[in-house]
Amino acid sequence: MTELYYFDNSATTLKKPAAVAEAVYHAIADGQLGNPARGSHTVSLNALRLTEMLRQKTAALFGVPDAANVAFTANATASLNMVLKGLLKPADHIITTATEHNAVLRPLYQLEEQGAALSFVGVDEFGTLLYSDFERLLRVDTRAVVVNHASNVTGNVADLERIGSFCREHDLIFIVDASQSAGVLAIDMVKQHIDILCFTGHKGLYGPQGTGGICLGDRPLAFVPVFTGGSGFHSFDKQYPTEMPTLFEPGTQNVHGLAGLSAGLDYISQKGLAAITRHLQELTFRFHDQIKDIPGITLYGSFAENVERAPVVSLNLEGWSSGDLSDALFMDYAIAVRPGAHCAPLIHQAFGTEKTGMVRFSFSSFNTVEEIDYAAKALRNLAEEG
Amino acid sequence: MTELYYFDNSATTLKKPAAVAEAVYHAIADGQLGNPARGSHTVSLNALRLTEMLRQKTAALFGVPDAANVAFTANATASLNMVLKGLLKPADHIITTATEHNAVLRPLYQLEEQGAALSFVGVDEFGTLLYSDFERLLRVDTRAVVVNHASNVTGNVADLERIGSFCREHDLIFIVDASQSAGVLAIDMVKQHIDILCFTGHKGLYGPQGTGGICLGDRPLAFVPVFTGGSGFHSFDKQYPTEMPTLFEPGTQNVHGLAGLSAGLDYISQKGLAAITRHLQELTFRFHDQIKDIPGITLYGSFAENVERAPVVSLNLEGWSSGDLSDALFMDYAIAVRPGAHCAPLIHQAFGTEKTGMVRFSFSSFNTVEEIDYAAKALRNLAEEG
Repeated sequence: MTELYYFDNSATTLKKPAAVAEAVYHAIADGQLGNPARGSHTVSLNALRLTEMLRQKTAALFGVPDAANVAFTANATASLNMVLKGLLKPADHIITTATEHNAVLRPLYQLEEQGAALSFVGVDEFGTLLYSDFERLLRVDTRAVVVNHASNVTGNVADLERIGSFCREHDLIFIVDASQSAGVLAIDMVKQHIDILCFTGHKGLYGPQGTGGICLGDRPLAFVPVFTGGSGFHSFDKQYPTEMPTLFEPGTQNVHGLAGLSAGLDYISQKGLAAITRHLQELTFRFHDQIKDIPGITLYGSFAENVERAPVVSLNLEGWSSGDLSDALFMDYAIAVRPGAHCAPLIHQAFGTEKTGMVRFSFSSFNTVEEIDYAAKALRNLAEEG
Repeated sequence: MTELYYFDNSATTLKKPAAVAEAVYHAIADGQLGNPARGSHTVSLNALRLTEMLRQKTAALFGVPDAANVAFTANATASLNMVLKGLLKPADHIITTATEHNAVLRPLYQLEEQGAALSFVGVDEFGTLLYSDFERLLRVDTRAVVVNHASNVTGNVADLERIGSFCREHDLIFIVDASQSAGVLAIDMVKQHIDILCFTGHKGLYGPQGTGGICLGDRPLAFVPVFTGGSGFHSFDKQYPTEMPTLFEPGTQNVHGLAGLSAGLDYISQKGLAAITRHLQELTFRFHDQIKDIPGITLYGSFAENVERAPVVSLNLEGWSSGDLSDALFMDYAIAVRPGAHCAPLIHQAFGTEKTGMVRFSFSSFNTVEEIDYAAKALRNLAEEG
């Protein structure tokens, strides 16, 4: 097939480091990795060693105070459901934001139906959080703050340290959705006062699909396990163990997938997260600068100089529906982007794009300056053709 | 490393068809599979096509009335939690059995804490279900029956058609845990009157870890989604869609793993399920026949002639703890088995093996007669050495 210019990396990174596919291949083909918590023979211990080493790598990347506080799940959606439904109660008031994804909103709406109260921090015309809202929305029964680190729609980044300080000051549990930021931006759970970090493996961490996780900080939290099952120990207890990391890992872990995630984390550590962040910032601003003056273009999100961003550029072009524009990009230029609404309804409402949607370009570490220039030119051509 | 004689296939099948690892490798390395529900470019459509074809293969294997009734999850534990907690209510009475795994029991115990009532069908001295208990335990508020198709401890098989008929007669929802039987024994949801089938991908289906699923029959059932999140459509609804298969698939699917599961199902269809069943029966009875007269041996489960069984042989040897015996098998004979308690506490209680546990041998399609003979001889040698 002809080359594809893939700019849908916020949905899933398509190109992975070669070592990722190889690690998963060997995990399955070599017959050396069993079921980690389910035996004492070598293949079971090999699997245990792999998951324990990956906990350490993950803890190092996110500044998790203790590697045992890293649990693996199937994806960020699983992580968020386990955390929100396992921790929050019908009597709680929860502050969240207009930038959240449905993986946060819909579990919270379910809690709302059970009696919980929700308040939403708003955004300005650039989609930037109105930080004064946190203080304004605070109530005596506020228990937790749930924040998207980087918006999957605008690429805007929340100031976690600032929100974390607010949470500590008022003794609130600080929960962060790092779906778009893990492997893209620096995260330090201690410095940013994060109590719970939920991440996915198949986006900025370049791991396979079917991987993700939950990291806990150093403050003790009482969870009710949302999923329960076999734990490989304490089999005769009616209740599922609540020790980390078992708490979030009932049943057989996806060790094959985790072998790939481990190779993804190695890639990040070899390149250096700071270098990846710089490269993605460069691509994003370069693309923005080349397209911002196209007649009839609307760009969403804050592109102020030197602002920290995730590598997302969402736009609309006058005279085009988002679906038609992305079809034309694909058919005429082999460019893959994502049109429509992006599972984050409140931010679309804030921009008034519920009906139109947006065309989203999202970049990965494997995208190049040449690809970005090609995409900008394609967009300009289509705008000129009408 | 020296060859390993792996008989822990009820925990996870270690040896997979070569095509499984290759399929997952290509799924990751070739960059042709994106996020199925998240775009309209080729790589997204490729992923959609793969998952839809796998639904059809799965439906064919289990006699699911409609391929759209097949949803994929991370493992059987996820499936069972989503089903039991999404369907059953505090007012329900549920009949289950003494052979269940903690992946069924612990979610049910959580429902019990919320007010649900549980009754347990007992077992005879061979661990066989006491079928008359179903009728005896029936109450006016009985809503569902949850049954392990094959015990992970004894390998005994439940008569699903018989229990299914009972369920239809009394309008009860019939939920089956096929963790040990999928790919091992014939399953036909229609003929066996199964309303909900929960399965895992990494055992008898020879897929990678991180795969599993839920199949629904033809009777309509009202679920509350246990996990919610992005659905790729209806983004502006506060509630998560309840259509199958989206109902159980919030967030990004493990398409990389599903590519491998698809190759696992191809293997089963090429070999023929009946041939696999026959081979496993042969191995199991051959092993049993060779070891049953070892002095001091205790065998658990029913080995009556021609009885349908899963390929599990659990035992204890006088003078040995289950841990010491499996260590000796591993150290002296490179045989991997599983000692201790096997996440199914009630069946251990029925046999009085809560403290001692059992040594479990469990076979896969890749095990050979020669390996079985070697294992039987090893066991005999250890028994003679004391």
